[in-house]
Amino acid sequence: MSAVPSTKPILRVLSGEPVWPLPVWLMRQAGRYLPEYRELRAEAGSFLALCYDPRRAAEVTLQPIRRFGFDAAILFSDILVVPHALGQDVRFLEGEGPRLDPVTSLADLARLAETLPLERLAPVFETLDRVKGALPAGTTLLGFCGAPWTVASYMIAGKGTPDQAPARLLAYRDPGFMLSLVDRLAAASVAYLTAQVDAGAEAVQIFESFGAALPPALFGPLSLDPIRQIVQGLKAARPQARVIVFVRGGGANLARVVEAGFADAIALDWTFEPDLLLPELPERLATQGNLDPLALVAGGDPLRHGVDAILRAARGRAHIFNLGHGIVPETPIAHVEEMLAQVRTAE
Amino acid sequence: MSAVPSTKPILRVLSGEPVWPLPVWLMRQAGRYLPEYRELRAEAGSFLALCYDPRRAAEVTLQPIRRFGFDAAILFSDILVVPHALGQDVRFLEGEGPRLDPVTSLADLARLAETLPLERLAPVFETLDRVKGALPAGTTLLGFCGAPWTVASYMIAGKGTPDQAPARLLAYRDPGFMLSLVDRLAAASVAYLTAQVDAGAEAVQIFESFGAALPPALFGPLSLDPIRQIVQGLKAARPQARVIVFVRGGGANLARVVEAGFADAIALDWTFEPDLLLPELPERLATQGNLDPLALVAGGDPLRHGVDAILRAARGRAHIFNLGHGIVPETPIAHVEEMLAQVRTAE
Repeated sequence: MSAVPSTKPILRVLSGEPVWPLPVWLMRQAGRYLPEYRELRAEAGSFLALCYDPRRAAEVTLQPIRRFGFDAAILFSDILVVPHALGQDVRFLEGEGPRLDPVTSLADLARLAETLPLERLAPVFETLDRVKGALPAGTTLLGFCGAPWTVASYMIAGKGTPDQAPARLLAYRDPGFMLSLVDRLAAASVAYLTAQVDAGAEAVQIFESFGAALPPALFGPLSLDPIRQIVQGLKAARPQARVIVFVRGGGANLARVVEAGFADAIALDWTFEPDLLLPELPERLATQGNLDPLALVAGGDPLRHGVDAILRAARGRAHIFNLGHGIVPETPIAHVEEMLAQVRTAE
Repeated sequence: MSAVPSTKPILRVLSGEPVWPLPVWLMRQAGRYLPEYRELRAEAGSFLALCYDPRRAAEVTLQPIRRFGFDAAILFSDILVVPHALGQDVRFLEGEGPRLDPVTSLADLARLAETLPLERLAPVFETLDRVKGALPAGTTLLGFCGAPWTVASYMIAGKGTPDQAPARLLAYRDPGFMLSLVDRLAAASVAYLTAQVDAGAEAVQIFESFGAALPPALFGPLSLDPIRQIVQGLKAARPQARVIVFVRGGGANLARVVEAGFADAIALDWTFEPDLLLPELPERLATQGNLDPLALVAGGDPLRHGVDAILRAARGRAHIFNLGHGIVPETPIAHVEEMLAQVRTAE
């Protein structure tokens, strides 16, 4: 850890310090709601090609910083570059999301790399290096990865699935395989995040997008334990790295992550009531979130009231203003500007 | 309310009385995992045709009672017969789920019936009447409807949608329309459930399948309040009717439904830990659930352990054994039999 306290608002919050006005960034802030993103995306060809093109990926990472002055820039990439680097076939179909050749057995797993071949992810690290050199002084650079269960659910089903039924069923049928898979992903994620930090990431977010559908008996071994393994592995290697854990849904699951105590910050989805939840959480645990992305699409009173509720509850807390899920393509840019004005001028 | 206490195990539980062994039924128990269902379903033509064919609908309602001796028979129908009876076009596409002509404005709503035309649902009531006459003495007859928000989310999007984004966005953009729609559905549901009780239903379940994606500010007016309106309306008209409310996900939402106190029983999805949750709930509130349907598909240890956890936690409580969601088509019948043996022979 640096001996000199950071002057970057997000790093201060991630050390447990309340900062006002709240620092702010948005999940999926480099994305299709921005015309400048759509232009570069069209040039790049496929989505994965854009992820592996350091010049363009750095540029789209920086676009929302230039336009809105967010307090964090988050690496433009995808959680599925990890299985891709391990050797799984991954495609992104326009308008349909990712498609993978399913990995459903120890034999399939044996065909993937045992340890993450970092050289295949060299473009990602080069992207971070380029962004780092171009960021304003107060802006925090964030890396990220998917949590093992979330990534595994795509690897097993070969696509996104309601309630992750194929992966959940396999967790019952073949727990040995399932534990091997999340363990392989946890180890790969430690290596990946460590390399991201070495390339310039000052904090990272771990996305557990699909933990809510896990029954409690599976949540421990498949979600909580592997995330802990990643955070502890990363912090053992790079003690200065800060970690935000994004937990979707599930009151009980959230309580278990908070209690486990390994996260510097918990990112909350839009279904949590800030007025009720934030006062219940440990004071030194930073929080992040949690405006409904659709309130940002709608604008007007729903947006103002939603922002107000977060500002009111987060007053005096170490909190980063964010959405409760990724910004959606149909979001009007004017609404983002209104939201930022409200957050930044709050008394 | 009948002056003589019921001898039906499920009605006893719904009056707050612990019964052992736990009575049991399964959500979607009349369904595609049964060969006798698949046969009748093929004869009937479309799914909606089967719902509106009292002879066949009564037969499929009774099939799982004959095969497994469940403690409740639940009317074979669909939550979307309500918008269908109100005048919305509803089709069921094989393998794709329901499709409706979207209703998204007060003008669209004005084209639907103001009050539920009960005569259009006469086949449903005839189904209940037929089932009533054929049930074993200890078997409870259940009716059901969808909660207004869940039904509205289909009416607005015209299909099932991830996180009910179209309906959620419209709730922000046009709260007046949204409140009119759920209010129309709540009133229709009171009339519908009252008529179901008159046709023989002894208890009803209200399915709020999609409440988890609602932010707290919308959960009150769009989910909790209309469900309360239905329960209070039904109980004012038919005080003997018992009501089970199925709440998916969302720890905070569940707490609000429990606190509201209008339900005789809460049906829990598979993501709640019975050991932790059940002791926290009011003793006289009956509960129902909550085995992961995929544990029933998997069988073996995951099934035995899942059943055990529920039996252990429900001991001494007024609890109905059930799944935490509908039984899935690939469920082996042998696993249902093993589960029943375990529940029924538990000491």
